[in-house]
Amino acid sequence: MVEDADKIRQSIRRGEWTKPTTGIDSGNTQANLVILPKTYAYDFLLFCMRNPKSCPLLEVTDKGVPVPVKTAPDADLRTDVPKYRIYKNGEIADDVTDIASYWSDDFVSFIIGCSFTFEKPLLDNGIPVRHIDEGRNVSMYRTNIACEPAGELSGPMVVSMRPMKPEDAIRAVQITSRFPSVHGAPVHIGDPDAIGITDLSKPDFGDDVTIYDGEIPVFWACGVTPQSVVMNRNIDMMITHAPGHMLITDLQEEAHAVL
Amino acid sequence: MVEDADKIRQSIRRGEWTKPTTGIDSGNTQANLVILPKTYAYDFLLFCMRNPKSCPLLEVTDKGVPVPVKTAPDADLRTDVPKYRIYKNGEIADDVTDIASYWSDDFVSFIIGCSFTFEKPLLDNGIPVRHIDEGRNVSMYRTNIACEPAGELSGPMVVSMRPMKPEDAIRAVQITSRFPSVHGAPVHIGDPDAIGITDLSKPDFGDDVTIYDGEIPVFWACGVTPQSVVMNRNIDMMITHAPGHMLITDLQEEAHAVL
Repeated sequence: MVEDADKIRQSIRRGEWTKPTTGIDSGNTQANLVILPKTYAYDFLLFCMRNPKSCPLLEVTDKGVPVPVKTAPDADLRTDVPKYRIYKNGEIADDVTDIASYWSDDFVSFIIGCSFTFEKPLLDNGIPVRHIDEGRNVSMYRTNIACEPAGELSGPMVVSMRPMKPEDAIRAVQITSRFPSVHGAPVHIGDPDAIGITDLSKPDFGDDVTIYDGEIPVFWACGVTPQSVVMNRNIDMMITHAPGHMLITDLQEEAHAVL
Repeated sequence: MVEDADKIRQSIRRGEWTKPTTGIDSGNTQANLVILPKTYAYDFLLFCMRNPKSCPLLEVTDKGVPVPVKTAPDADLRTDVPKYRIYKNGEIADDVTDIASYWSDDFVSFIIGCSFTFEKPLLDNGIPVRHIDEGRNVSMYRTNIACEPAGELSGPMVVSMRPMKPEDAIRAVQITSRFPSVHGAPVHIGDPDAIGITDLSKPDFGDDVTIYDGEIPVFWACGVTPQSVVMNRNIDMMITHAPGHMLITDLQEEAHAVL
């Protein structure tokens, strides 16, 4: 069933929807959210520029503006994400469903493409998406792939993983290559050890999913990477979406295809 | 003849090569250069993020570093561009072949993809590139297409133009779509008036070229856009390449293809 982005956001705003947003069949781009004080904005923008697979920017708001005027002009970034994560001094301080009490006119918000966006094209191509089938959040892992540092910011890439048959993995490379602004092609296929993941059944974020015989794991760069990076530094304040709990934008998925 | 990027840069560094870099068949990505004091770097980085067709960033250097460590680690940004343009208070102050005397440790350098990069794939597909055939610089024009503003920066998009047969224009859309980091697909095809260009024979930058009967002009966003934008503002100091006189990077052209 195709769902309406604005109706879902209203439901989120009223506090009725607090679960992950995977599997929403709205045709709309889903996005990661990173909110930082202006003093960190240059380093973070540079970090995104240098790590476009992990941090494909869809929009950067002007300082103090809580509305993503390009990606979702009717949305309010203080209320329209199902769950937020508050970081203080590089540590998780709270998970909340509304950040109105934390908001500052000094904040800059970064809207970053999310791989949930290309799950509909995968399904449309007959490729099953396991965590949707199992009603779970996608599996996410810290890797040993170093991001390009920018100023104070450095750390490892976080990836999302979807297990699939080899022939589906090949097709998935083709499909997701069309969407560089929502992470694009995979960063790794196969052996988890090769990128520093020791146990697929124990994701660092999200849930684990079943991997059947004959399937291989396919890994995409993940917009949770900034959360991992900021935990490496003593940044006094950052607000993000909680992993898997994304902003639903007004952008049509197909509008992101480069071909 | 395939030419070696490092040899060309050395020739430029010795002051032997001061002409435009179009038509160099090195297989290497060519780039626009914008150098700004750090105080303007956030707004300019945001401008590039919001205008990726005009300003596809390949690299942003750390403050004071005159070497593009990712795109051309053996290059020196103070000497390796054939001709530089110095802007003071928004006006052209000088064209020089070396900026060592202007260099400041407060400078941040922005390396931006250039459409010259996709001219080799066009030629490889049998599509003639008129300004190469005529030994001229590409034709560039200011348009009435407004860029997305960022902080103090706003202004019109500059485009490069290549005339071609309609069937070649269709193929050129396919070819250049593969290369979003060097401006990607055209922004306009056909009627120049529709984007505010009144006379194709009078380009704002570069040279005019012959347009034969039955050909249509094809327009790509151009990395000269920032030069036009900064002339709209009273920015005290900016250094760029002179239009058509690009930085030759070590990046292989094909490495930029998204498919």
